[in-house]
Amino acid sequence: MLTILGSGSALPTRDHFPTAQLLDLREKQFLIDCGEGTQIRLRQMGLKLNRLGHVFISHLHGDHCFGLIGFISSLGMLNRTADLYVHGPVGIRELFEPQLAFFCADSPFKVVFEEFDSRRHAVIYDDRSLSVSTLPLRHRVPCAGFLFREKPGNRHLLREWIDYYHIPVAQLHLIRQGADFVNAEGELIPNDRITAPPNPVVSYAYCSDTAYHEALIPLLQDVDVLYHEATFAESEVKRARQTLHSTAREAATIARKAGVGKLLIGHYSARYHNKELLLNEAREVFENTELTSDMQTFAIESMVKSS
Amino acid sequence: MLTILGSGSALPTRDHFPTAQLLDLREKQFLIDCGEGTQIRLRQMGLKLNRLGHVFISHLHGDHCFGLIGFISSLGMLNRTADLYVHGPVGIRELFEPQLAFFCADSPFKVVFEEFDSRRHAVIYDDRSLSVSTLPLRHRVPCAGFLFREKPGNRHLLREWIDYYHIPVAQLHLIRQGADFVNAEGELIPNDRITAPPNPVVSYAYCSDTAYHEALIPLLQDVDVLYHEATFAESEVKRARQTLHSTAREAATIARKAGVGKLLIGHYSARYHNKELLLNEAREVFENTELTSDMQTFAIESMVKSS
Repeated sequence: MLTILGSGSALPTRDHFPTAQLLDLREKQFLIDCGEGTQIRLRQMGLKLNRLGHVFISHLHGDHCFGLIGFISSLGMLNRTADLYVHGPVGIRELFEPQLAFFCADSPFKVVFEEFDSRRHAVIYDDRSLSVSTLPLRHRVPCAGFLFREKPGNRHLLREWIDYYHIPVAQLHLIRQGADFVNAEGELIPNDRITAPPNPVVSYAYCSDTAYHEALIPLLQDVDVLYHEATFAESEVKRARQTLHSTAREAATIARKAGVGKLLIGHYSARYHNKELLLNEAREVFENTELTSDMQTFAIESMVKSS
Repeated sequence: MLTILGSGSALPTRDHFPTAQLLDLREKQFLIDCGEGTQIRLRQMGLKLNRLGHVFISHLHGDHCFGLIGFISSLGMLNRTADLYVHGPVGIRELFEPQLAFFCADSPFKVVFEEFDSRRHAVIYDDRSLSVSTLPLRHRVPCAGFLFREKPGNRHLLREWIDYYHIPVAQLHLIRQGADFVNAEGELIPNDRITAPPNPVVSYAYCSDTAYHEALIPLLQDVDVLYHEATFAESEVKRARQTLHSTAREAATIARKAGVGKLLIGHYSARYHNKELLLNEAREVFENTELTSDMQTFAIESMVKSS
């Protein structure tokens, strides 16, 4: 599940906080960007962060990281003890460590900064169930998006067939991982007779902030859900070029060319009170587009192709 | 007028942002403390800051200053050009200048830090119409409140008497300041026959965060409106002592002993969903107490004593 904590851009509006998202995948939480007010939205929504270990900061513009110090400070007051890893572009440690040292000197947990090279597509987080890699973006400062990819989980035991073949408990672990079974008579029972396939894996890509950037397309192939910034409408395409942001149509073009399952757009310029214009411009190019708004949640589901 | 931008304490709640207030006195705006989300509240309320020149930070705890960098950054995006003065305890410059240099390098205006000694009661701002002085508080880190005192304005000309005595326009400036008038026949017309008294001056004192601190009482004599933190109810008096905060009853005791006109309380601990308990405990000691809440406004009026 994806929770939008802030869907706006640099200037907050009546409705939109600056950018932040909470991603819940495989029983783990990941915070993606941390604009001012992130901790406020979390508290307003009553969200607990017991399963959060890693924060990913796309770039060092204020609307993506000014909430970091308050967020970390409040985690300390809420008695967090587990280490917190903050992944960000080179420079993030030097920028935030002095403030952490001053304001969070009594913090009961450690903050570990992990810097990445935003020009490279590389795995920066990896565990048994998923990996996170950087997506180089084209913006005014070093900036990377993030691609979350689940790994295939275990197969599901078909209880009635497990019983029928009298399979010993000790072997179930291997069978979940795809092993066939050989019974006392030497007969081989193929795995797919006694198990069902694992849950489909899902992938989520986060691209903010960036100019239209075709180098992303191969990296986003078949991603289930893509969040792509859509700061401007087509009428402001010049401003998009100047500021290295995208229009809604450009976000949709990336989505279509990469063949993603669903597109979410956000990071709206404060000038758009009504976002329908942005939505319509995107849908002309890529039908399965949705607007994001603060405190909204989206399922991150597999969009299995019929092919 | 006083606008409450945040009425909470360290942990934001569903209703309360951390502390920030906007004071509008004599056609000038003053920002007092700047917790996370200050710029968000300002935008939500549609407030413009054309008359803001000075920010006052009471102390360097995050819930009173984490909004500063975002606030300053957004002022730059809104094309402010006038210098901004940020008054705070010693250390504020060193703490914020590196972040300003990084995030606001292109800012179209200058930020000038003015550090004060929080142990002294001293004037830190002074102009023709009002002054601001520090109020030493007792907290875990160096901390000062702020006392805003208007100076008497000009007397009001009584137009019919001005006409009756044929007073030349060139003399009106002095007469507004209290001068008598001598006519062509040498007759003295006393000032109070041709003018009415100036508007009454008002004063506002801001005291957050502090333990119960009787040294404040002489400094707060006859203040019109006092904001005093009331983090805890009486049942948590031990916790108040440990953290160097006040109970609502203690805030009211200071108000009563200083003979202020009205008491506003805030900086509520996140544990109090219902603030009536705090209000009732304060009102038992000082009847003219009011709760503050986010985005609420209060008139700052003269509470002229009948004596």
